[in-house]
Amino acid sequence: MNNHEYYMRLALRLAQKGRGFVSPNPLVGALIVKDGQIIGRGYHQRYGDHHAEINALQDADKNVTGATLYVTLEPCCHEGKTPPCVDSILKHKIKRVIIGALDSNPLVSCQGINYLQSKGIEVITGILEQECRKLNEVFFHYMETGLPFVTLKYAQTLDGRIATATGQSKWISSPAALKFTHRLRAEHDAILVGSGTVLQDDPELTVRHVRGHNPLRVIVDKKLEIPLQAKIFAVTAQAKTLIATTKKADNHQFKLFQDSGAEIITVDTDKHGNVDLKKLLMILAGRKISSVLVEGGAKIITSVLRDNLANRLITIISPKILGEGISAVGDLHITSLDSAKKLSIQKIRKIGCDIMIDSRLT
Amino acid sequence: MNNHEYYMRLALRLAQKGRGFVSPNPLVGALIVKDGQIIGRGYHQRYGDHHAEINALQDADKNVTGATLYVTLEPCCHEGKTPPCVDSILKHKIKRVIIGALDSNPLVSCQGINYLQSKGIEVITGILEQECRKLNEVFFHYMETGLPFVTLKYAQTLDGRIATATGQSKWISSPAALKFTHRLRAEHDAILVGSGTVLQDDPELTVRHVRGHNPLRVIVDKKLEIPLQAKIFAVTAQAKTLIATTKKADNHQFKLFQDSGAEIITVDTDKHGNVDLKKLLMILAGRKISSVLVEGGAKIITSVLRDNLANRLITIISPKILGEGISAVGDLHITSLDSAKKLSIQKIRKIGCDIMIDSRLT
Repeated sequence: MNNHEYYMRLALRLAQKGRGFVSPNPLVGALIVKDGQIIGRGYHQRYGDHHAEINALQDADKNVTGATLYVTLEPCCHEGKTPPCVDSILKHKIKRVIIGALDSNPLVSCQGINYLQSKGIEVITGILEQECRKLNEVFFHYMETGLPFVTLKYAQTLDGRIATATGQSKWISSPAALKFTHRLRAEHDAILVGSGTVLQDDPELTVRHVRGHNPLRVIVDKKLEIPLQAKIFAVTAQAKTLIATTKKADNHQFKLFQDSGAEIITVDTDKHGNVDLKKLLMILAGRKISSVLVEGGAKIITSVLRDNLANRLITIISPKILGEGISAVGDLHITSLDSAKKLSIQKIRKIGCDIMIDSRLT
Repeated sequence: MNNHEYYMRLALRLAQKGRGFVSPNPLVGALIVKDGQIIGRGYHQRYGDHHAEINALQDADKNVTGATLYVTLEPCCHEGKTPPCVDSILKHKIKRVIIGALDSNPLVSCQGINYLQSKGIEVITGILEQECRKLNEVFFHYMETGLPFVTLKYAQTLDGRIATATGQSKWISSPAALKFTHRLRAEHDAILVGSGTVLQDDPELTVRHVRGHNPLRVIVDKKLEIPLQAKIFAVTAQAKTLIATTKKADNHQFKLFQDSGAEIITVDTDKHGNVDLKKLLMILAGRKISSVLVEGGAKIITSVLRDNLANRLITIISPKILGEGISAVGDLHITSLDSAKKLSIQKIRKIGCDIMIDSRLT
């Protein structure tokens, strides 16, 4: 590991501190190094607040003139919620900027670097680029595809069942796994479930067992069949609710739902007559929702997988065998092993007595 | 950790060296300690050879008079393949014997200890007893229930499928997992599969990718429907084959099968008209088969689980999602989560790109 990688790794660690607070902005960390000493540290702490570079410059306890700036993501050159970072870098007479990943934001991409170079600042890019991109996989996916990064999360028995044949699903997993789920919710901009899950489990879909913000709750309900007594209506003051329906919904029901305080939107149907999930995701992306946590049920999980809309899969495996029961994943129209959905395992760990497998769809 | 536990742990480690060679005998390790020095080490190396205590006494490089013997299992007091160990202990004037687990063998249990004590030897028992029992879980189960220790092993996708809807199962798991399976085979006295697996996959069921003995191959085939061209007949010279059938089998077919060199036995049927697996296991136990590896298919796996005959479950999870397909486990007549089969996870590790989960039925 050379010096550049060493400092970039420290910057990456700083960036992590913003997790859960900066979306839809990326996580960014920055370091200022002069004469072999770290003289300033910063990270992007909260959406709308200073960028990491500015925080590092302000943190510096020495004159930064002639220093090197390490930053995990290409500095911005556009006026957003805050002034462009490249101007501050120039103003502070930074001599050299070392960058992890290039920004995919069309307002930034490569222009930040060009601008700095045109002003005589030395720029080095691609230091720990993979790690820097991985840190902001959500941000990059959102910027590059115009769709939110979609994480499927469900608890199943070892034999792949999310409920008994009669629909009993409380509780497949352990209390420790529940806490994990709430932490996951707090890291996402929105949670999405199907109407079946509301009808079956009546969940609140809020963050309770950990500290963190409540994501937008999105319910897919093509005919507005969920009851107005459902908990997702009752706790609207704490968390917003968006119900995605279709033209099949009854007009009277539509008005009743609107009066509940939830927002109701009509989305086009797919070829099966269900809510077109890709179109729904595009609508969410337009509202700065960069990450969606899909918590079930089986029908939504199956649709998201079949339509190749899932990026990440988190499976909680409870050490139980049920035999017959409701499968987590239904028919994907896969007929050969070669065409199975392939996963890249990122992390395996025990949560209470359960096993958590965190993977990416490849 | 006191001194006794320290030495017992070393003895446990020695015992492990016999794995794969001593069945149906237990794994045993022994140490001789005198004046705070280890002067002899031994373990049971191979079925029919010297017991661990004798090997430790012979290994001793000093006079063992007055020394302490650590042994993971109660020394035997009966004439078996070798003379009783207690006599050697007396003859060598060992002063004290520290024992891990008591022997469940009805020919030994507690009599070894009584005999030693009656001759004035100090005996301490129960040092790391749990670990010492765990080491020989197969042996203890076999001795205490009269049934072989049954391990279910199968490879599935993350969503619990062992094959596509059309029956394609080659290969769910990776080449690394195949090697693991062969190592597992070599550690068992017998492998058991259903006729469906022979018809579908035509496996050899031998140990090829690692060094080790070939276990007895047991095929459950109630009507003798597998073809005589099946590989399990072709390689009989390397490994023995036992076919368990019922009275439903055709007489002519029975004779043809016998001529193949395989052994055919007729077993009673269970209430579903299939081979009664418990009776088959009792027959195998009577032939000194203390461990059986069940490799499938779904029907046998389901029967073994439903009839509570499984002790251990090893699941290889391939990082794939199939959706519809053949489930590893079929109907267990379980209607509530409370009555799900519960597992205690012992080990989780990656094998190639797969995940291996080693658990015990609780």
